[in-house]
Amino acid sequence: MNVEIVTTGTELLLGEIVDTNAATIARRLREIGVNLYYKTTVGDNRARLAEVLRLGLQRSDAIIVTGGLGPTVDDITREAVADATGRPLELRTDLVERLQALFAGWGRPLTPNNLRQAYLPAGAIVMPNPIGTAVGFIVEHDVGGRTCAILCMPGVPREMERMLADHVLPYLRQRQGESGIIVTRTLHVAGVGESLIDDRIAPFMTGSNPTVGLAAHLGRVDVRIAARAPTPEAAAALIAPVEAAIRERLGRWIYGADDETLAGVVAGLLRRRRATIALLETNTAGHIAAMLRETAADLVVMALAGSDPAGLLGLETPLAAEEADACRAAHLLRERGNADYALVLLATQGPNQGFWAADRGHTWLALATPDGVRSERFGVGGSDEFSSRWLAVYGLNYLRLQLL
Amino acid sequence: MNVEIVTTGTELLLGEIVDTNAATIARRLREIGVNLYYKTTVGDNRARLAEVLRLGLQRSDAIIVTGGLGPTVDDITREAVADATGRPLELRTDLVERLQALFAGWGRPLTPNNLRQAYLPAGAIVMPNPIGTAVGFIVEHDVGGRTCAILCMPGVPREMERMLADHVLPYLRQRQGESGIIVTRTLHVAGVGESLIDDRIAPFMTGSNPTVGLAAHLGRVDVRIAARAPTPEAAAALIAPVEAAIRERLGRWIYGADDETLAGVVAGLLRRRRATIALLETNTAGHIAAMLRETAADLVVMALAGSDPAGLLGLETPLAAEEADACRAAHLLRERGNADYALVLLATQGPNQGFWAADRGHTWLALATPDGVRSERFGVGGSDEFSSRWLAVYGLNYLRLQLL
Repeated sequence: MNVEIVTTGTELLLGEIVDTNAATIARRLREIGVNLYYKTTVGDNRARLAEVLRLGLQRSDAIIVTGGLGPTVDDITREAVADATGRPLELRTDLVERLQALFAGWGRPLTPNNLRQAYLPAGAIVMPNPIGTAVGFIVEHDVGGRTCAILCMPGVPREMERMLADHVLPYLRQRQGESGIIVTRTLHVAGVGESLIDDRIAPFMTGSNPTVGLAAHLGRVDVRIAARAPTPEAAAALIAPVEAAIRERLGRWIYGADDETLAGVVAGLLRRRRATIALLETNTAGHIAAMLRETAADLVVMALAGSDPAGLLGLETPLAAEEADACRAAHLLRERGNADYALVLLATQGPNQGFWAADRGHTWLALATPDGVRSERFGVGGSDEFSSRWLAVYGLNYLRLQLL
Repeated sequence: MNVEIVTTGTELLLGEIVDTNAATIARRLREIGVNLYYKTTVGDNRARLAEVLRLGLQRSDAIIVTGGLGPTVDDITREAVADATGRPLELRTDLVERLQALFAGWGRPLTPNNLRQAYLPAGAIVMPNPIGTAVGFIVEHDVGGRTCAILCMPGVPREMERMLADHVLPYLRQRQGESGIIVTRTLHVAGVGESLIDDRIAPFMTGSNPTVGLAAHLGRVDVRIAARAPTPEAAAALIAPVEAAIRERLGRWIYGADDETLAGVVAGLLRRRRATIALLETNTAGHIAAMLRETAADLVVMALAGSDPAGLLGLETPLAAEEADACRAAHLLRERGNADYALVLLATQGPNQGFWAADRGHTWLALATPDGVRSERFGVGGSDEFSSRWLAVYGLNYLRLQLL
């Protein structure tokens, strides 16, 4: 079943608030396995909303609308649905009585415009709202022999969420005939770019069930595998072979899945060896230590961060972002911290360096281990915020690969 | 000029992330005064995106697209724009050279799919991206003698924000010919419902410049007046008479404007009298004290909150949510706290009471002042989260009205 979401409200178009309702609905729709292809936002304008609904009637099996059900003249959803479906608005005595009882209970006058909330398009099915004045409604409309349902909910998040759970999702699930759920599996990759990953796994990215998609983050790419099936077990069975094939192609680039973090994985590797670590980072604002401390504060015995690595180690001669200096610093740091491992990251720090600069600078990583010192060069230096975060992820991933 | 926003990305439709790009763009568009009538989100699907763009070409003067400019097979914005405008994709040697230089600098291989980022629809104007691999582009397309521009930006927020500021907004501002800015003024109203406000100011809500809209919050309604004009001064001149007329109709219901808060206003009233206050609240979880403490911690000399008001005051006999008990408690509290004012809020607390329950309960408010004790009844009690927050706002507003 193909569903679309229409959120209404001029405040959404003014950018005053972020549209969290749409994200909430999208997440819940995914759980019941319907297809969501479009989300549209329109202001409080009757003609434009009606136009969007007419388009939705043509291309979707259900349209979920939020907002515009209040009592004021800029609440125009009832009218727009009536316009789009060619139905008159009808005064519902059951809704009038409900409003009268509510206002009498509060000891407040029922003004004429409150009665706007008692009008619904002819044939609408009411969705009760136990925590607000605006009821929701469903209009099932025939479009050339096919039925498209328009489901209207209030825009207030807590009222919307309750109506979604109590009425909209059960309705859609029933119409869909329990056709399934969507399960996703996300693999996290570090140390390589999106395009190189795509190059290796492109054959899997054109499938329709499961679908495979990429999302790039700082120094990290997520590979998302999403399968639709009647049960979680059946979805897992669809995901498994694709995940295995992707893992075969990406190998050690994959550091974890779903909720696993790079720092958590590295902490696990250190813990398995009962090993401690000392850190020295330039240009990363101490990001590596910060990431590791979240899950492995007890394993970080010393963490030095700053722009003068020699000063941090109490040396007389400066340390440059060169291999020999990085190795010497790692060796010293391991002794100084009495740690099993010592990771040093020395990045060049010219003012015009960084990921996207003409002169990118460079970084030397060195890791002192019980068996000696290893090192690696990376072709980006700099200390702007982007580079520093990227370098920190790169450095932490280097540590992971060395510990494997 | 009428603009619409199209955000792309299956992750937006899965509800995994909230669409902050759309809100950012909407806010910036408002600053330059263009009309934003539609926001649409589509997944990474070439045919559906092309369809949405075709619709936009018909109804808008500019379409701002984010996302889908990466190097992978699910980045389909370039193709969809080509489809929607009937233009071929062309390999741009300037972009090939840029990618070659970037990847050489990073010491990484340029894979064939990286070259996808060097293809643009014929006639596209490049928008440079100094902090990412994906350049943006503008296609100016003729639609029956009218020009509609499609402006495509990356989906990564920091890259999008920079391109928006450096290229998209200047482009739109130029096309629009400096037609103006939008200024908003928001009046805050407490203690009355949305429909009663609408009833009084409905005549102003149908204008087009300024527009007037309502947004309901817990116990509070915002009246937003938005004017479009060439300068901030001209916009203010459009807003002033409408604001004056609304203020005349809503009078003391309006407690403040724009960034003013109810607690801040009450604190100001107390400060002007050099007065201190003591508080006793049942069923509100201490919300009144919490709100006042944010701006007037020094004025709150005593704050009692809990379900047993007599116990809080050290009394033997219980205190009920009745007028005599509320007044007695206020009198005692003022003495006990050696305060100038003492506010008491006693709400009934049956398990099935509250705003939307059949038995709504009730609340008695009492304020002890240097001149005696005043009291007021409100037809809702209960202690569910909604009622407690509503009652707290109501109680604080009662204090404001008494201090005026």
